Amino acid sequence: MRPSGRANDEMRPVSFIPNFTKHAEGSVLVSFGDTRVICTASVEERTPRWLDKDQGGWVTAEYGMLPRSTNSRMGREAARGKQGGRTMEIQRLIGRSLRAALDLKKLGEHTITLDCDVIQADGGTRTASISGGFVAMAMALDGLIKKGRIPDNPILHHVASVSVGIFNGTPVLDLDYAEDSNAETDMNVVMNDSGGFIEVQGTAEGAVFDREEMDQMLELATKGIQEIIAEQRTVLATSPTD
Amino acid sequence: MRPSGRANDEMRPVSFIPNFTKHAEGSVLVSFGDTRVICTASVEERTPRWLDKDQGGWVTAEYGMLPRSTNSRMGREAARGKQGGRTMEIQRLIGRSLRAALDLKKLGEHTITLDCDVIQADGGTRTASISGGFVAMAMALDGLIKKGRIPDNPILHHVASVSVGIFNGTPVLDLDYAEDSNAETDMNVVMNDSGGFIEVQGTAEGAVFDREEMDQMLELATKGIQEIIAEQRTVLATSPTD
Amino acid sequence: MRPSGRANDEMRPVSFIPNFTKHAEGSVLVSFGDTRVICTASVEERTPRWLDKDQGGWVTAEYGMLPRSTNSRMGREAARGKQGGRTMEIQRLIGRSLRAALDLKKLGEHTITLDCDVIQADGGTRTASISGGFVAMAMALDGLIKKGRIPDNPILHHVASVSVGIFNGTPVLDLDYAEDSNAETDMNVVMNDSGGFIEVQGTAEGAVFDREEMDQMLELATKGIQEIIAEQRTVLATSPTD
Amino acid sequence: MRPSGRANDEMRPVSFIPNFTKHAEGSVLVSFGDTRVICTASVEERTPRWLDKDQGGWVTAEYGMLPRSTNSRMGREAARGKQGGRTMEIQRLIGRSLRAALDLKKLGEHTITLDCDVIQADGGTRTASISGGFVAMAMALDGLIKKGRIPDNPILHHVASVSVGIFNGTPVLDLDYAEDSNAETDMNVVMNDSGGFIEVQGTAEGAVFDREEMDQMLELATKGIQEIIAEQRTVLATSPTD
Amino acid sequence: MRPSGRANDEMRPVSFIPNFTKHAEGSVLVSFGDTRVICTASVEERTPRWLDKDQGGWVTAEYGMLPRSTNSRMGREAARGKQGGRTMEIQRLIGRSLRAALDLKKLGEHTITLDCDVIQADGGTRTASISGGFVAMAMALDGLIKKGRIPDNPILHHVASVSVGIFNGTPVLDLDYAEDSNAETDMNVVMNDSGGFIEVQGTAEGAVFDREEMDQMLELATKGIQEIIAEQRTVLATSPTD
Amino acid sequence: MRPSGRANDEMRPVSFIPNFTKHAEGSVLVSFGDTRVICTASVEERTPRWLDKDQGGWVTAEYGMLPRSTNSRMGREAARGKQGGRTMEIQRLIGRSLRAALDLKKLGEHTITLDCDVIQADGGTRTASISGGFVAMAMALDGLIKKGRIPDNPILHHVASVSVGIFNGTPVLDLDYAEDSNAETDMNVVMNDSGGFIEVQGTAEGAVFDREEMDQMLELATKGIQEIIAEQRTVLATSPTD
Repeated sequence: MRPSGRANDEMRPVSFIPNFTKHAEGSVLVSFGDTRVICTASVEERTPRWLDKDQGGWVTAEYGMLPRSTNSRMGREAARGKQGGRTMEIQRLIGRSLRAALDLKKLGEHTITLDCDVIQADGGTRTASISGGFVAMAMALDGLIKKGRIPDNPILHHVASVSVGIFNGTPVLDLDYAEDSNAETDMNVVMNDSGGFIEVQGTAEGAVFDREEMDQMLELATKGIQEIIAEQRTVLATSPTD
Repeated sequence: MRPSGRANDEMRPVSFIPNFTKHAEGSVLVSFGDTRVICTASVEERTPRWLDKDQGGWVTAEYGMLPRSTNSRMGREAARGKQGGRTMEIQRLIGRSLRAALDLKKLGEHTITLDCDVIQADGGTRTASISGGFVAMAMALDGLIKKGRIPDNPILHHVASVSVGIFNGTPVLDLDYAEDSNAETDMNVVMNDSGGFIEVQGTAEGAVFDREEMDQMLELATKGIQEIIAEQRTVLATSPTD
Repeated sequence: MRPSGRANDEMRPVSFIPNFTKHAEGSVLVSFGDTRVICTASVEERTPRWLDKDQGGWVTAEYGMLPRSTNSRMGREAARGKQGGRTMEIQRLIGRSLRAALDLKKLGEHTITLDCDVIQADGGTRTASISGGFVAMAMALDGLIKKGRIPDNPILHHVASVSVGIFNGTPVLDLDYAEDSNAETDMNVVMNDSGGFIEVQGTAEGAVFDREEMDQMLELATKGIQEIIAEQRTVLATSPTD
Repeated sequence: MRPSGRANDEMRPVSFIPNFTKHAEGSVLVSFGDTRVICTASVEERTPRWLDKDQGGWVTAEYGMLPRSTNSRMGREAARGKQGGRTMEIQRLIGRSLRAALDLKKLGEHTITLDCDVIQADGGTRTASISGGFVAMAMALDGLIKKGRIPDNPILHHVASVSVGIFNGTPVLDLDYAEDSNAETDMNVVMNDSGGFIEVQGTAEGAVFDREEMDQMLELATKGIQEIIAEQRTVLATSPTD
Repeated sequence: MRPSGRANDEMRPVSFIPNFTKHAEGSVLVSFGDTRVICTASVEERTPRWLDKDQGGWVTAEYGMLPRSTNSRMGREAARGKQGGRTMEIQRLIGRSLRAALDLKKLGEHTITLDCDVIQADGGTRTASISGGFVAMAMALDGLIKKGRIPDNPILHHVASVSVGIFNGTPVLDLDYAEDSNAETDMNVVMNDSGGFIEVQGTAEGAVFDREEMDQMLELATKGIQEIIAEQRTVLATSPTD
Repeated sequence: MRPSGRANDEMRPVSFIPNFTKHAEGSVLVSFGDTRVICTASVEERTPRWLDKDQGGWVTAEYGMLPRSTNSRMGREAARGKQGGRTMEIQRLIGRSLRAALDLKKLGEHTITLDCDVIQADGGTRTASISGGFVAMAMALDGLIKKGRIPDNPILHHVASVSVGIFNGTPVLDLDYAEDSNAETDMNVVMNDSGGFIEVQGTAEGAVFDREEMDQMLELATKGIQEIIAEQRTVLATSPTD
């Protein structure tokens, strides 16, 4: 029995509130249950110096948590003077995942920066960030097309992410904090809308996992990601950018 | 004529959404028009080392802006490895202002940390932070009393803040970004509910100001702060903490 | 009764020793009583990248305290690896104040950097820095004119600064450390020679202040600043640069 | 055809040179082909402050690359003043993997720090670090037992790691740099000697991967890790610590 | 012929102005010609954690240059966020040199921190810092004895320092900036009043030096240091601390 | 009697293993007894911005110690976020010493960076770094000539370094850690193959030293450096670069 009473293959309620803030080219508040992340996409007409011009554009990401997004207050990274290893790991993951959604050549000489800032954390902040980051990026790209700054939409595939794990010996989908902090295994999966894997990051926390458990977890992840992508399509279909 | 069409002595709509996030002892989303700041109050049972035990408790504040809270994306302070001068100046101001609201002895051996994170900026982020920070702090104090951790409420006075300035030669109340970036003078005022001044910070940006202009600006600030405090009272009267 | 025995509207002895060090384009040792600050003005033939060329030149400031300028030794900011919030706040204030003295267009493509280094602190280091910084800047500008590098003197007004406050319930002028550390209110005022306000920064430390007290403090500040400007004029009239 | 001419399921030559340096409690030079990493294990009689005393000991890891371990010189992280995201990600991975090898309670109040310093890089530095780090740790634990500082060996399982990937459309084992930099998918796998998974980190670089490819990669990884563990057992059986 | 017209074995005028600032336990402005350094000695009743209690006290030093102490403005180390290699090298040298003057056991549980801040640089700032640092330290020790905090004077020997070098093929004493920047060899020598060497740091800048040149330089240094020590004795004999 | 049983004028075994790592233009593992340092020379076709083009090329050095190169583990400088004073002092010394070996004009527009990373420390790491750094640099220069990128060999002289000191009252050559940590005087000497001095850095640790002792130490250093240079010549004559 899960602490939340959910079925093992049941997601938390997933929602995307588009245009949550007004300045960014794309902006969304993504919720996976009580986990809430503001994702904004910012577009600049330049690419990193190290990138060859003929490779097209670039997508990068930054991640942060408000100090009191968590149960007990965390030190502010800006005040401590550096980003921790977990932060860097997550923002590198978000960037890789979202670049896998695009044909970067079609992006032209643009850089899109995704800022994923967690305002309330209850497990799965990185998977919510990737899933919400995709929506913010898609909105920004839609704007670029409408303004005639790029001719074709660079999106090849929807991309979304969910966590799965082994909790009390049973594979479960979309761990919340109560599960995450006690799971034997925690696995973050990023997939696209054709069912291809982009990232699989599984970590045994107390007990190792075997091939059968991995297969079950990947099944659950596939189901969850399809549901998230369906939600992404709904919100993008109904929220015009202008 | 103000860009927003407001009267010279007219505030933007002010609102406080209490319990905006769930983990903090006190939490509010404060809006001054399009300026939106998440204020959380975190309580710890310790005081800074340099504070004498018989001086009671302490209140401190940290301030940040999400990178895309602004019109063009700002670099993330955590990524740059240090907080800028403006950030430090503002968080020192918030801390001083909110300490002035309390009898710190009654706070006992507790430290309250206010985190003011701007999710959307349109001028007046520091004044919104102080005004919202007071509400978050008051909610946290209410919780401490209900749990029996402090016997008396340390609040001596409500504290709120507003900006005033000279825009196109005319004193105006509560500058938004369109005004702030073109004002001749910008003044931030912090007052309590008895009309006493806690902070007055006036800066001439292009033209100096004289005593008469200062008097007019202080009149406007007094009016605005009374309105904000009335709104604080309403939200605190109707939003029980538990 | 003030600890120093001064009258309430009495400044400490103010002096400016010009050409205190030999390398800078302008250099002065300013004393407000026992507070002593070395102010140097350095001129470079370039302007910050973010400044439009047609806006003319720029003035910026840096501030520091020798570790043992104070009663007990402070940690050296260079050794701690960052400048504290108070330092940043003060150097931003000095820069804004001195820019307000000039027609920056007449400065042409030059940047003047004021370094204000406190060698002995006894209250009022920021007001002495602004007042002395003006003298160092004026000397450097005089040199630029004499060398033919700028045609007209960019100085619009003399600028000086003094602190005022409420000590033992009474408004007083030019607080020394004994007063500053016990004052109910501390206010730093920057004005120009036509009596216009450039900055007013008042902070209630223990008790709030009211409109009448503010009026009295502004009167005292006006008197003090006139005296400082008179002293600035004397030293600039008699100390030729070459 | 692989650039090295190896079969798809063929490891590079793996070797462990024990006691490579003399000061550490455990020390080994691990080679996976031309990739060479010095792994040292240092033992301290203390545990991190945040660890409950009854949880036993702790294992942590740090990772670095000599600036010219790579084909073109990388900036030295100590000179740049911070460790990059990749470094932090890798050292967190090494620490988690090696903690999974132990019953930390049996370690008592000791912290083991693994330093993995790459002196020559040719792909797979993190997998070599984990595999070599295990040997250095086992040597240090052997020493603790011989000195009577811990009664039982905390090792539950051997732990080793290898990379697998999809290169030119074919799953291959133990990618060298020529393959790694062109692979469609790169996956690092950490397993123990009972075939349980500790970490699976797969990243699609250009094309996504599917379930069948994942299965093939996990087969290859299992084969490779068994070979590495056999080599670990040989070196530990023959290299007495004293 | 030297640029200054001095004889090869002639020091610049050396002076020590005691009690140059009022807060420190010992304070002096030392001048070697146009090189001017404020040296203060601060006493704390504690010793570094790593020092065994029975080893007595400790002496340490910090060094800095005001940004415009030099001909062209240097960046402020506090603003750049770290001390440069030259600064660290010099402050380590000052600390070692002054510890060599004392019987640290007699210092008891005290740490003396010397701050040497260059307000005007014209070559030889480190040798002036050591020579002036000794005077500030001696004044602070005198104060400790007068207050009964230590029974005996820990000073074993006077310590002073001077630079020597090869300029235009000729050994010269006490190089000023014009010489220092063009010398073939630059050597800093620290000696005590019995003629013993504490530090000898010679660097060939363009041409190597031989044994005969070294002998000549050491002769000059011995002469110069005797003169500086004589001046130290004079100022310490006539400037009572209280 | 020396702890190692060596004669007072006896070096530890010195060896240079060329081509120790494969990527660098020059690479050597230098051993002075148990002290082992990996020295690599990296060549870039650019020179520092501050260097005039007609001055030719540049040589710089960086130094580091693996955390467990020492008897007890040192904190990793990359993790602490800055290089310590000792590290900076040593890398400045290595750079100056190796620049003295070359006619920098003949180097053309190239920068050579020497990385000296200590993998095992037993005293004399900086002298081994200089001696080994010369070999790595010479190999890199040989490669530049063979590739036709520079016409003439810029090497003017071989350069090597050794430490000498006073141990138990007796001058000794090439101190190991057991001696170094107890020596009364420690002196590092850098010379070229014509017997000219490049650097002499002598430090009295407990007792001062006199002219006679300095003479004896310089004799020992001269002998040791001749032996090191002979070994350099042997390894460079027999290890072709390609």
